Amino acid sequence: MTTPDPRPTAAVVIIGDEVLSGRTHDSNLPYLARRLGELGIRLVEARVVADQQQAIVRAVNELRAQNDYVFTTGGIGPTHDDITAESIAAAFGVPWERNEEAWRILAEDYAKRGIDFNEARQRMAMMPRGAELVRCEAVAAPGFRIGNVFVFAGVPRIMQSMFEAVAPTLAGGPPMVSRTVHAIGALEGQIARRLAAIQAEHPMVSIGSYPFYRDPGGVAIVARGTDGAAVDAAIAAVSAMFRDFGYEPHEGEPPPA
Amino acid sequence: MTTPDPRPTAAVVIIGDEVLSGRTHDSNLPYLARRLGELGIRLVEARVVADQQQAIVRAVNELRAQNDYVFTTGGIGPTHDDITAESIAAAFGVPWERNEEAWRILAEDYAKRGIDFNEARQRMAMMPRGAELVRCEAVAAPGFRIGNVFVFAGVPRIMQSMFEAVAPTLAGGPPMVSRTVHAIGALEGQIARRLAAIQAEHPMVSIGSYPFYRDPGGVAIVARGTDGAAVDAAIAAVSAMFRDFGYEPHEGEPPPA
Repeated sequence: MTTPDPRPTAAVVIIGDEVLSGRTHDSNLPYLARRLGELGIRLVEARVVADQQQAIVRAVNELRAQNDYVFTTGGIGPTHDDITAESIAAAFGVPWERNEEAWRILAEDYAKRGIDFNEARQRMAMMPRGAELVRCEAVAAPGFRIGNVFVFAGVPRIMQSMFEAVAPTLAGGPPMVSRTVHAIGALEGQIARRLAAIQAEHPMVSIGSYPFYRDPGGVAIVARGTDGAAVDAAIAAVSAMFRDFGYEPHEGEPPPA
Repeated sequence: MTTPDPRPTAAVVIIGDEVLSGRTHDSNLPYLARRLGELGIRLVEARVVADQQQAIVRAVNELRAQNDYVFTTGGIGPTHDDITAESIAAAFGVPWERNEEAWRILAEDYAKRGIDFNEARQRMAMMPRGAELVRCEAVAAPGFRIGNVFVFAGVPRIMQSMFEAVAPTLAGGPPMVSRTVHAIGALEGQIARRLAAIQAEHPMVSIGSYPFYRDPGGVAIVARGTDGAAVDAAIAAVSAMFRDFGYEPHEGEPPPA
């Protein structure tokens, strides 16, 4: 897209030794990417960083200065490797201290379940000064927001519940419209010149080209933009181009073999 | 891990609007994370950035200054949205120019297949001055290396083939040993204090705690380190701890329900 994008921007910070070691396949980024797009928020960067305070502070401080929203996932549980809240406090230069509301919520929840609200669990009530709680339907233990940074759990079900709890409060721009056309048998190198011309003629739309190697292979062209009519026009031009080359354009998912 | 880690470090830069839009679930990071671990290289950060030169330059220049190796994926095809090679040239401050060896390889390959070596395809021979080609078994079109930065395709099959082509040339440290113990029914908040003490007593090992919510749920403890005996000792301590709490420790995958 060569015209200015009117949408607010976001970045995601995945705090996760387990992702960097290859043990866990992150599924929070795909979820956030899809949902932010639907809300009209442009995800411009994602980082996976280690469970180390310095790494978290650096990523969060760089990204919160450059974006409207930052979402972190992971590291807010009760164990020694859960260092996100303390790191976020360090990033903002504020004390890491007991949040009375979080303490009350956790104490009540554990009492109700007959579970000891011990020192480790109390640590989940330790937050940066000024944090506002993010409550969710999945669990009692809250995430939090400070400034433009939202701090969520790493477990996907809980992360999603926390995100959906704050989603209505996020100021989005116009939602992104995305349309995809597949052409079986097409080769990127064959269509590249015509496609570049179509991109130049449709500056309001971002056009991406993705070869696929299923049997049969081909090329998928994705047109994205906030102006639905402009996306439609670009897709029409792409479909016409495919027909000119003798390929049948298929919208949506690739056609069955 | 509280002791210095002797392994060389790496970072990954995923160049991908399609990942940030949620259209594509990246599978290159899990592959690289696993393989780098096996090779004794510590993956310390991964970034997903947009298909924009400024974003690519910034990420690559920050990460190549801080790490022994940087691996990029995506954006080296023949279409207008393939801007990685030009962006890497900009990051290194060198010309983006025709690589004669890549040109020859591509020209020969297209001639052999009876396909026109047109302007778009010729663009795949445009590389930063000083680039060394990365040939692979999957395709003729090469990736390249410049300085400590390796530039690979985004299609997983090709990316993997390019990585395996350079893997024998990478200087690794001692490989990471990882052992996992699951305990069904355990709660993080219950074991957190004992676990923190075990971590403190085993500074050569990095101990992570990951709750799981399958039915039945529990906690997985992962101990990782380059000293296998130290990892074994930590795992023995963790297993003993689980037994003290009345849980049966299971190594490896969680036991069936």
